[in-house]
Amino acid sequence: MSLWINNQWLVGDGEQFQSLNPYNDDVVWQGHAASVDQVERAVAAANTAFLSWRNTTFSERLAIIERFAQLLQQHQSQLAHIIATETGKPLWESTTEVAAMIAKVGLSTQAYHERTGTRQRQQDNTTMIVRHRPLGVMAVFGPYNFPAHLPNGHIIPALLAGNTVVFKPSELTPNTAQRMCELWQQAGIADGVLNLVQGGRATGAALAMATGVAGVLFTGSAQTGHLLHQQFAGQPQTMLALEMGGNNPLVVGQEYGEIEAAAYTIIQSAFLSAGQRCTCARRLYIATGKAGDALLARLVAVASQLLVGDPLATPAPFMGPLISAVAADHIILHQQQLLDADGVALLMATRGQGAIVTPAIIDVSAISELADEEYFGPLLHVSRYVDFTQAVASANQTRYGLAAGLISTDSQQWQYFIEHIRAGIVNRNRPLTGASGDAPFGGPGASGNLRPSAYYAADYCAYPMASVEGDDVQLPSQLAPGVSLS
Amino acid sequence: MSLWINNQWLVGDGEQFQSLNPYNDDVVWQGHAASVDQVERAVAAANTAFLSWRNTTFSERLAIIERFAQLLQQHQSQLAHIIATETGKPLWESTTEVAAMIAKVGLSTQAYHERTGTRQRQQDNTTMIVRHRPLGVMAVFGPYNFPAHLPNGHIIPALLAGNTVVFKPSELTPNTAQRMCELWQQAGIADGVLNLVQGGRATGAALAMATGVAGVLFTGSAQTGHLLHQQFAGQPQTMLALEMGGNNPLVVGQEYGEIEAAAYTIIQSAFLSAGQRCTCARRLYIATGKAGDALLARLVAVASQLLVGDPLATPAPFMGPLISAVAADHIILHQQQLLDADGVALLMATRGQGAIVTPAIIDVSAISELADEEYFGPLLHVSRYVDFTQAVASANQTRYGLAAGLISTDSQQWQYFIEHIRAGIVNRNRPLTGASGDAPFGGPGASGNLRPSAYYAADYCAYPMASVEGDDVQLPSQLAPGVSLS
Repeated sequence: MSLWINNQWLVGDGEQFQSLNPYNDDVVWQGHAASVDQVERAVAAANTAFLSWRNTTFSERLAIIERFAQLLQQHQSQLAHIIATETGKPLWESTTEVAAMIAKVGLSTQAYHERTGTRQRQQDNTTMIVRHRPLGVMAVFGPYNFPAHLPNGHIIPALLAGNTVVFKPSELTPNTAQRMCELWQQAGIADGVLNLVQGGRATGAALAMATGVAGVLFTGSAQTGHLLHQQFAGQPQTMLALEMGGNNPLVVGQEYGEIEAAAYTIIQSAFLSAGQRCTCARRLYIATGKAGDALLARLVAVASQLLVGDPLATPAPFMGPLISAVAADHIILHQQQLLDADGVALLMATRGQGAIVTPAIIDVSAISELADEEYFGPLLHVSRYVDFTQAVASANQTRYGLAAGLISTDSQQWQYFIEHIRAGIVNRNRPLTGASGDAPFGGPGASGNLRPSAYYAADYCAYPMASVEGDDVQLPSQLAPGVSLS
Repeated sequence: MSLWINNQWLVGDGEQFQSLNPYNDDVVWQGHAASVDQVERAVAAANTAFLSWRNTTFSERLAIIERFAQLLQQHQSQLAHIIATETGKPLWESTTEVAAMIAKVGLSTQAYHERTGTRQRQQDNTTMIVRHRPLGVMAVFGPYNFPAHLPNGHIIPALLAGNTVVFKPSELTPNTAQRMCELWQQAGIADGVLNLVQGGRATGAALAMATGVAGVLFTGSAQTGHLLHQQFAGQPQTMLALEMGGNNPLVVGQEYGEIEAAAYTIIQSAFLSAGQRCTCARRLYIATGKAGDALLARLVAVASQLLVGDPLATPAPFMGPLISAVAADHIILHQQQLLDADGVALLMATRGQGAIVTPAIIDVSAISELADEEYFGPLLHVSRYVDFTQAVASANQTRYGLAAGLISTDSQQWQYFIEHIRAGIVNRNRPLTGASGDAPFGGPGASGNLRPSAYYAADYCAYPMASVEGDDVQLPSQLAPGVSLS
């Protein structure tokens, strides 16, 4: 029973597929993808459900969502276990993912009111009022790295605003998505308000092309996001809000402060979630000279000792495996390409059990042309620089613009950095992987067109309806020129 | 000297064209369109200017903009005269257009701070802060019906946020655009911060395709807007914010209140600006029965007596000519098509001097299939209805969703209306052409993808930059699992 359409669990009519535990290859889920027809039925169910859901009160919608949050709380350890075994993320990290889902309810409520609430003012006997109305059926595309938290960050704001949803999770994390939807069902959400279709690229394409989709909230790869953007060409009526990847620079100033803390901050930036966060630092810029040498040496030493292994082990590892063996191979291949192109391995990644890849730190200073791609794993490219402003210019040499960081105690450097860097998440002396839930998330360039994640998600889940209202028609004290009522 | 690039007035290298007074065919402007090369130079100049303009303070930018507003105030009657002679809008109405431009400064400042300002909070020794950063060079496409106010509504928010601008006005209103830019020059705006390229479709296409355009703020026809949306397929990195047309319904309930005021409200909704407002009522739904008959008769009588004529005349007309003879022919042709398809003329439009078209009211109740197009002129389609909910359903039968109105003293009808109508401007008992400047403007469907006009314009002129900041790196009280610094 892999699909959930109009509150019914169904067997998919599409291809069979499995989800594997990337640490030990256990099958954690198997089922069938949705057929095109089933996807269309899910959208139709959501459209029918929209007719009543859109006119429920905010409190009624919030009540259901809060019940879901209570169930998350009750089942936190169970859901964390599901996430850990399906993604390979350590249990402690998977537990924080569920906590982020729960926190999303309060943050989304705040954002709903602030960004899309109702406001009015009176002028004589006329009321000027702005309401916001839901768009209709929102297609939610989720990624595998936060298979619960990130789609949840689209689903909660969409539902709060009065939209209904068809959710297509990553085909690498169907089990997490299924468990989420079971909790929604247990929370008592009305038939068809939220629907789940499982599957890969064909299912996603069917959803994007289904008649009756009012908007798409997408978090995923730049490649898929750009394809969707192509697909919706000439269709401005569909809200297409894309959150994509990054090729994120982290610049370390000549004065970086305490060396252990600086190394730790870089580790957290580059290797948290085994480098599978879209905000992870991919490119590290360190000044030439002794201070830089020392930091780099310390970074390599600490990285080489990171505990990497079974996500469920005690003591807990810092990193588990990547999402799949394919993803692991991809990182190892990229490492080899860098070495072939005169990169210098300061720390070599190696494959371990399952999809495990240990951290890599490659000095790419000697490589003249680097691919501007997002390598989604624990591989850090290091460039040594002489001039700070040149380092910032190099940092900006990417079509992406998601995240960028500065480690520096020099406030003038920080001022220069925020005035010149082009990125949506710009941190100073804190891990680049840290972002505040009450802030908008995303970046310019190829990282996304709008900001469907985090605080501005509300913007893409409702349209403003501005009204000028009076209880009855009235004649003005003076008629417009050229009008005669005589 | 038709182009203004990098603070230089230049002769265009493209085709020569003219702007005519649509009332008497006087040539009010002639010049040459920009060549592709000149458009690219304008974008390059704007990109160069961006490097310093983006890092000016908000107060510095506001100071220039307020100087521009003072000049508008000083030259209000002159600019109104230019608008009236170029568009055919009565002088009194053109004067209000300039007033709206001046008011835009205060409204945009408020919106800048509210929608895109800076906010921060402290947590221990970490600051969470959201700034907003400009996008770069914004291409502004203006329409002919408000040739000053509407592009001004894109330009002011774009400049306030720190963007630079290349402005391509409608080829039907180059004179108004030129005078606006002369005032900007007089205000002392820095070289290249605002640039003007004149011309038609080829110039527009060159601007949209120019390398270095970060965003497009467009107000114009649905046809051109959809072409732009096609053109930017697969380019999510470009902010494309489209404000397009409508096919706006106005529903009159069985209890519409005082008959003179109701008729006046419909006149203002359908015929203001000779029907050349994108919010104009195009489709009027009136209940069958005596009360509806009486209102319709009164509406026809008042409309037939509207003063239509020379925009500069005394006493002032309610309506002047349409923008061009082509536009006038288009309305007359459409009227004939309606009559050929069993429409009943309650009031026939006739051609007058220049591009004058008198008001038309056509009962289309007998026509089974009406084109869902925006006819931009003084032609009102009337449908009689029996059931109110059916009338609302018919009102929603449009791919557009810009404006919709209800005239009714019945509050339950209003509640039903706002819960079921799909439109961005939804007025009750007030002219549909009235919208509040401190509210977002636009609508869903084919009326636009985002809301680049009015209060939410700020959203599309800046991207959020969210930061987590500390003065120096620090180790947490407890390291993440699996990390050892020993």
